[in-house]
Amino acid sequence: MTAANELTASQAREALDKGRISAQELLAACLARISARENIVGAWCHLADDLALAAAKRLDGDSGRDGSSSGLPLSGLPVGVKDIIDTADMPTTYGSAAYGGHHPKSDAACVALVRAAGGLVLGKTVSTEFAYFQPGKTANPHNPSYTPGGSSSGSAAAVADYMVPFAFGTQTGGSVIRPAAYCGVVGYKASYGALPLYGVKALSHDLDTLGFFCREVADIHLMRAALVGAPASAPVDAIAPDHAPKIGLCRTYEWEQADRDSQAAVLDAAKSLEAAGAELVEIDLAPPFAGLVERQKLVMAQNAARDLAFEYNQHHDRLSRHIIALIEQGREVEFTAYQDALGAAAEGRRLLDGVFAEVDVLLCPSAPGEAPKGLTNTGDPLFNRMWTLLGNPCLNLPGHAGGNGLPVGVQAVGALGRDEQLLAHCQWMERRIV
Amino acid sequence: MTAANELTASQAREALDKGRISAQELLAACLARISARENIVGAWCHLADDLALAAAKRLDGDSGRDGSSSGLPLSGLPVGVKDIIDTADMPTTYGSAAYGGHHPKSDAACVALVRAAGGLVLGKTVSTEFAYFQPGKTANPHNPSYTPGGSSSGSAAAVADYMVPFAFGTQTGGSVIRPAAYCGVVGYKASYGALPLYGVKALSHDLDTLGFFCREVADIHLMRAALVGAPASAPVDAIAPDHAPKIGLCRTYEWEQADRDSQAAVLDAAKSLEAAGAELVEIDLAPPFAGLVERQKLVMAQNAARDLAFEYNQHHDRLSRHIIALIEQGREVEFTAYQDALGAAAEGRRLLDGVFAEVDVLLCPSAPGEAPKGLTNTGDPLFNRMWTLLGNPCLNLPGHAGGNGLPVGVQAVGALGRDEQLLAHCQWMERRIV
Repeated sequence: MTAANELTASQAREALDKGRISAQELLAACLARISARENIVGAWCHLADDLALAAAKRLDGDSGRDGSSSGLPLSGLPVGVKDIIDTADMPTTYGSAAYGGHHPKSDAACVALVRAAGGLVLGKTVSTEFAYFQPGKTANPHNPSYTPGGSSSGSAAAVADYMVPFAFGTQTGGSVIRPAAYCGVVGYKASYGALPLYGVKALSHDLDTLGFFCREVADIHLMRAALVGAPASAPVDAIAPDHAPKIGLCRTYEWEQADRDSQAAVLDAAKSLEAAGAELVEIDLAPPFAGLVERQKLVMAQNAARDLAFEYNQHHDRLSRHIIALIEQGREVEFTAYQDALGAAAEGRRLLDGVFAEVDVLLCPSAPGEAPKGLTNTGDPLFNRMWTLLGNPCLNLPGHAGGNGLPVGVQAVGALGRDEQLLAHCQWMERRIV
Repeated sequence: MTAANELTASQAREALDKGRISAQELLAACLARISARENIVGAWCHLADDLALAAAKRLDGDSGRDGSSSGLPLSGLPVGVKDIIDTADMPTTYGSAAYGGHHPKSDAACVALVRAAGGLVLGKTVSTEFAYFQPGKTANPHNPSYTPGGSSSGSAAAVADYMVPFAFGTQTGGSVIRPAAYCGVVGYKASYGALPLYGVKALSHDLDTLGFFCREVADIHLMRAALVGAPASAPVDAIAPDHAPKIGLCRTYEWEQADRDSQAAVLDAAKSLEAAGAELVEIDLAPPFAGLVERQKLVMAQNAARDLAFEYNQHHDRLSRHIIALIEQGREVEFTAYQDALGAAAEGRRLLDGVFAEVDVLLCPSAPGEAPKGLTNTGDPLFNRMWTLLGNPCLNLPGHAGGNGLPVGVQAVGALGRDEQLLAHCQWMERRIV
């Protein structure tokens, strides 16, 4: 029998609803796993096991083990929260020495919604400094000599290591999809603006997007039900053979910078999906898309100089050289260059309307390859920057392995604002990627 | 000679730069006005006069009165901050009994940027509860028996009453343009997402937009320079006679709900602008626009149930019946209805691309009429809801008066993301509206 902590969120939901396990048993299994592995993985910067146990006990007291559940989508499911997200009952450091011991007055909206949906907030996961490039202590659970990726390092590692079925991340460059790929889990970055960001520390307001990690695409519906009131499960026909999506194989202008592992993962996935009945077309993006990675970097720097102005002015000596360099680069960006970058993104969105009239989903690399060796950098968000600038919803689908035996994922990109449709397509694809 | 506190921000900028006044003199004039009038107007919930005086003294020490200025766009200019915006050195209550005495850990991005640009944060201005409908103590400075409008009540009143040249507001329904109209000042709501929102309490994440009040359109450039690095002044030809904009007279589907004062203000403005050389065309919005006011209400409620989930769950007994009703309405919104509303907004944006290919700026009512009598409600955002949902930048241009002798404004609406162009057109219009 699968250990309770190894159940996906959807599996755990079913087991809890049918009374096969209790919330306390599920939580105990997660805590046991953390206890056994945290010294190697280093996913957490704060554990609120007592608070979570008390909440689990209350839930079990309400529902017992008779199969009656609260009906709430996250009831009894443990959730990790990236430490750039405010929690009223736990410290929140934003990954920065400037915020040691900071206790916010209120929960971020997403945390309050998890609690209201019955979720158990188990603790805070390690983030790079302000969700940028200065790494924390987290290692890749598949091999601790390798980075888990970032900035949502602890969340990706905790879900990959079966410590917790759900954990929040945020993406400004590639901070959800990249660590999901490196750690071999499902990562979901929502459409820009689709999930409530209040109480999430800002890095770049034109780009920052909430997302989360889990181990099965179906799980995403549960969390979206809690966050935005979407249906808690997909339409039953979403995974039927005759619902094969039309897939656009999209190498992007960065394809040559993906290594053989990453290219092979995309091409193999395309082949197996086509064999399973999907229609496959090649999508060559128009020339304006070639410049969008650089545009994303410019927007990110320009914004960071504004969004972190308080820290730059008040806590300068506690900031890393990475974040200072970003802010100072952003202070030098000409306003017209910034406007041009936003204009190019808007033009890209118009062009993608045409692309998504032709195909349902784009398939492209999640990352340049496996996780890089060492814990001093979190890898390159090269294959994520453009999509974050454009705002499209993105998923990492795991399933491949590279030459070092580490996970390699593929990225599925949907039409802006059509997250539900992307999830349905990804549920179909997930079962048919070999 | 004009009293220093009656100078517009641009006039004060010039007087400070030329050494005609010092920052301390300007601040003293503002404080004297507050001292004389605050018991009637009630614009402030916290005054930080000591902190502001110390900052002004430092600025004067740096620059003296020899005409040399720091070159910073807001150097020496006092600024009021709506109390839903975080300040690290002043209490921040979000207009709610649940946050009495709350001291945020950091400044909101916009506050940090004001300080970095040399602005003097003079205090916190009265907001309705969470920027919704439960009013604070503020009265209309033109006649204290009338509302100043809301939710940015204190900011609009403080600028109108010459207490301060600048004050921040936010708009989710009509919380900048409406109080600007009622108080007779320039109000500017930026394009959705254009100004940094970090540290501003969320009410509705699909709608919340930063803006501010001042007494001359040119002032807006100074604040935008501080916030987003835009040029601190308009191109010199923006107000030349041969730069007359092409103006679309846009009655909107709500026109019949504007009273004779408000209709006359729009029609008179159109007439005088045409006489001054502007090309004037009538714009009839397509049928889909007829439903957008109701769509905005639905999105606002749906979001509020998410963005204020913490307060609803943790501080229920300290919330007003207004905000509880909004949240409970939002909890009942079907997800498909919410998605339909966002889809209708997206369709409206596409249709407006065509409208703004024809005209430079739309002219429409700012509010249904003069400020309503009494301080128990803040008036109706009817003429602002649609534009907030669509995200367009909007200005209130004051200049008319209604039957009760209170101000009546007109609303200028620009193309989404083209705030600079809207400002240039409004500078032209401002001088030619009789």
